[in-house]
Amino acid sequence: MSETGSSLPETGPYTLAIDGMGGDGGPEVVVAGLAIAADRHPSARILLVGDEAKLSSLLARHPRAAAICTIRPAASSIPMDMKPTAALRVRDSSMRLAMDVVARGEAQGVVSAGNSGAMLALAKIVVKTLPGITRPAMAAISPTTRGDVVMLDLGANVSCDWRNLVEFAVMGEAFAKAVLGLPAPTIGLLNVGSEELKGDERLRQAAEVLRGSPLARQFHGFVEGHDITAGTTDVVVTDGFTGNVALKTGEGALKMAFTLLRQVFTANLLGRIGYLLVRPGLERMKEWLDPRRYNGAVFVGLNGVVVKSHGGTDAEGFAAAVDVAMDMVTHRFTDGIRERLAHMESLTSVKASPDQSQAVPAS
Amino acid sequence: MSETGSSLPETGPYTLAIDGMGGDGGPEVVVAGLAIAADRHPSARILLVGDEAKLSSLLARHPRAAAICTIRPAASSIPMDMKPTAALRVRDSSMRLAMDVVARGEAQGVVSAGNSGAMLALAKIVVKTLPGITRPAMAAISPTTRGDVVMLDLGANVSCDWRNLVEFAVMGEAFAKAVLGLPAPTIGLLNVGSEELKGDERLRQAAEVLRGSPLARQFHGFVEGHDITAGTTDVVVTDGFTGNVALKTGEGALKMAFTLLRQVFTANLLGRIGYLLVRPGLERMKEWLDPRRYNGAVFVGLNGVVVKSHGGTDAEGFAAAVDVAMDMVTHRFTDGIRERLAHMESLTSVKASPDQSQAVPAS
Repeated sequence: MSETGSSLPETGPYTLAIDGMGGDGGPEVVVAGLAIAADRHPSARILLVGDEAKLSSLLARHPRAAAICTIRPAASSIPMDMKPTAALRVRDSSMRLAMDVVARGEAQGVVSAGNSGAMLALAKIVVKTLPGITRPAMAAISPTTRGDVVMLDLGANVSCDWRNLVEFAVMGEAFAKAVLGLPAPTIGLLNVGSEELKGDERLRQAAEVLRGSPLARQFHGFVEGHDITAGTTDVVVTDGFTGNVALKTGEGALKMAFTLLRQVFTANLLGRIGYLLVRPGLERMKEWLDPRRYNGAVFVGLNGVVVKSHGGTDAEGFAAAVDVAMDMVTHRFTDGIRERLAHMESLTSVKASPDQSQAVPAS
Repeated sequence: MSETGSSLPETGPYTLAIDGMGGDGGPEVVVAGLAIAADRHPSARILLVGDEAKLSSLLARHPRAAAICTIRPAASSIPMDMKPTAALRVRDSSMRLAMDVVARGEAQGVVSAGNSGAMLALAKIVVKTLPGITRPAMAAISPTTRGDVVMLDLGANVSCDWRNLVEFAVMGEAFAKAVLGLPAPTIGLLNVGSEELKGDERLRQAAEVLRGSPLARQFHGFVEGHDITAGTTDVVVTDGFTGNVALKTGEGALKMAFTLLRQVFTANLLGRIGYLLVRPGLERMKEWLDPRRYNGAVFVGLNGVVVKSHGGTDAEGFAAAVDVAMDMVTHRFTDGIRERLAHMESLTSVKASPDQSQAVPAS
């Protein structure tokens, strides 16, 4: 993440707006996370938005964070369970004011651990969608046996057409360049089989457009569920429903593996001795798969970098989300998408025949 | 699987038709698998369909298999890469003749490791769909931290409406009763969030129908990707696209965990000693997660038990697929679905307003 993406020096100063009030842990976790982030990005400038009294007293306890932060007061905040439509009506929320800062160009990116539905709705209205992008998507990095993979959409768009999928491919490629530091990331379209005839018309049409696009050499074709963790491609493109299920299913399977492994190592004395012998290796493995290391899903396709930290994360996880935002800002992620879109525009205007009846079952 | 499902004594004799020619390993693997199955189901009768000369010579080498098998000659077989439409035109294939045996009532179930697309197409035409079922689905068992879970559809139907999902719930419940031996399996509908408003209209409509059905007390509502391996419900219902991706993603994540674990145990001398100390526990863990133990996906919703073995499995895996078929036959799986459908019919005739535009994004 930060290590692989930050090959380019930070020529900043770059500014991030941080929603100080979001997340299950509230301002305490955010400010503790910023203290860690301050060590990694000493030249960054942070506009910390939220309850002034609360944030001031926390910054007083975290001098490292205080050194890079300026507080922007906000009178209210969005509760974690508020409906997006209701959140849009709260004009003075810390989340909205943080987005305003990006929309005005005072900051290049925003990070919040708050309500995701509200965040997507506000981002669309305040930060706004890039010209040429129909709908923003949610992207994030996951571990594979071969390195990291960028997957999108992870839930912003429950149903998608072929055009959305092509746009996701464009945005995912720019994301992999910015955050993974890859010069020419490969792209796979998630399907129920790798043969050309698998899936529905929507997928076949998206594949055809990508094969005829400037991304053709990087487009690998269809990939399957097991290809995500195998690292077959650097980017995996899918609709928000499938992506959300796949992400959570993969995380669940790893959690099960660790639960079973804990049983093996605690079953008896030999197990406990065995654990002591392999602990350093296991710790590295756990670290590699640690969801906190992958914290920081990005709403891509907007006029600025918008990063969503997991609501339940800790300071380390929040700092990882700040890393993602800094990587994307310093590597000019938004400009990268704009440039790519300029070359894609003519191609995605191709007409498709959305014949869903020709769906071919999985093998 | 066999252990949990076979609480009822096999009151047989039950007869299975076996496609002797299907699978990457061909008749050798099938007959070696039947030798293992013969030990577990000594009173079963097997009609082994395929190349008579080939199968006779293999049975001569496997006397245990020969004791329960009768050969039914078939002049041809379906190649693994043949299109379903082409496979339907081959009248004398081992796969088709094995299905014919079930359709005529000579056997209660059929097992094949052959071409899945061809198998689904032939099953629909030869074995035929149960009255009241719109489309057959593919179901299988997966491991969880709490026991086993039945998931369907795994790829027979790339796109589904709410009515298909309700039917899948009915069939999945009967499957869990037959193969897992559960008296009242719980059912979850896979979605991008557990709140009632998540997902699309199709999912909300299916949930509403299930809440008002005889299955209401067993219906848990929406579940998410991580609930599959957590064992939140005994049955997870989804469309064939999502189910196929989720199954393969989960398998891929476990494979990654084992790959990383192997690196930990082979990195140095301490790792190798550690491995020796915990080997028995690790072997049990691997066995629990072994895809061969879960081999045997079932096409449910047909006038007979139709089990698909993985094409690349070995003799042990093929024997597991035979176990699944025997469990379903002895526990009267097909009758169980018929009885449940009789009570559901009035409910699934409720009209739905398929308003896909009200899709709610994931959290």
